[in-house]
Amino acid sequence: MRYPNGKTYQKKESDNKTEKTHRTLLSAANRGMSLEEDINLSNDYYRDMGIALINKRPTPINIVKVDYSKGARITDAYFEKQSTTDYNGVYKGRYIDFEAKNTKSNTAFPLSNISEHQIVHLKNVLKHGGIAFFIISFQMKDEIYLLDASFVINFYEHGDRKSIPYEVFKKDAVLIKQDYAPRLHYLDAVDQLYFK
Amino acid sequence: MRYPNGKTYQKKESDNKTEKTHRTLLSAANRGMSLEEDINLSNDYYRDMGIALINKRPTPINIVKVDYSKGARITDAYFEKQSTTDYNGVYKGRYIDFEAKNTKSNTAFPLSNISEHQIVHLKNVLKHGGIAFFIISFQMKDEIYLLDASFVINFYEHGDRKSIPYEVFKKDAVLIKQDYAPRLHYLDAVDQLYFK
Repeated sequence: MRYPNGKTYQKKESDNKTEKTHRTLLSAANRGMSLEEDINLSNDYYRDMGIALINKRPTPINIVKVDYSKGARITDAYFEKQSTTDYNGVYKGRYIDFEAKNTKSNTAFPLSNISEHQIVHLKNVLKHGGIAFFIISFQMKDEIYLLDASFVINFYEHGDRKSIPYEVFKKDAVLIKQDYAPRLHYLDAVDQLYFK
Repeated sequence: MRYPNGKTYQKKESDNKTEKTHRTLLSAANRGMSLEEDINLSNDYYRDMGIALINKRPTPINIVKVDYSKGARITDAYFEKQSTTDYNGVYKGRYIDFEAKNTKSNTAFPLSNISEHQIVHLKNVLKHGGIAFFIISFQMKDEIYLLDASFVINFYEHGDRKSIPYEVFKKDAVLIKQDYAPRLHYLDAVDQLYFK
């Protein structure tokens, strides 16, 4: 198993330490690491362990100019807006689709950086029987939650404020365990919400 | 419904013409159009009609330099090899994953442009209960087939020759009906292979 950075992962003594110690080590190790990196590494782990196959969609880029004299080097291009979510794949035969976001707020998750397109996409996922959710990191609290997409869709379309209060996460989301391998045990949260 | 090119699609008299006429019109209309475009338009149709949600993964690009003075313009980048397949999504609650390829050969589909990575990916899809297949266009015959990924994996790993004979397609693949909307009725072939 390769984890992380392509190195072979082997179970070490330290893996058997208590969860509390893990969390402490982790918080230090994670400083400066992004939620995206944590999810990517977790997906590598889940894939290599044969648990699930979930990938990040590449960022869509509109290519304007390619220099073939340099072996197909792109010399002019720009980022396009993602019209879907960042992650999808298959777990226990089910289609999985999710978006991950950070917030520095302690009181609510602002919906301002979720696009109308993504809401439409997630409604479609639910309609066709897929599993759709958000992974939201409250950075200041060091808490990461998995919240079913239906809550986000509902707040987006019918909420008074353009945010989801922290209390909704405490009540309706599942707190994701942070660890070493996988970094985020987010499929445990998926099991709890969708496979019970 | 938008189809194609963002225009609203409305059922026209011509839609009621016989399939033979359709096919004749189509062959002319399609000249110069790519398999990829046909699949993308079919996916637009399936999405807009609420039948399935299947998207093309963006081509992965490694970004070397971004000019922020021009509003995040990418000035140096290169194409990365796709380590997965080109398409995935959800249909009737199931995870769908496939790759599309053309061949100018009349006798066999050469496996040379399928990467080891893609074979590993497709084996993983099958392992986790997803539906995995190839859409192969025999361009000279104007025939497009849907073949379950297990055949491709088997020929890739155990075949004597680095190709799959045309006869295998005649026997084990499903011929995809070509039409106007959708261009390729490939989900009919999926129904036939996986939902009977």
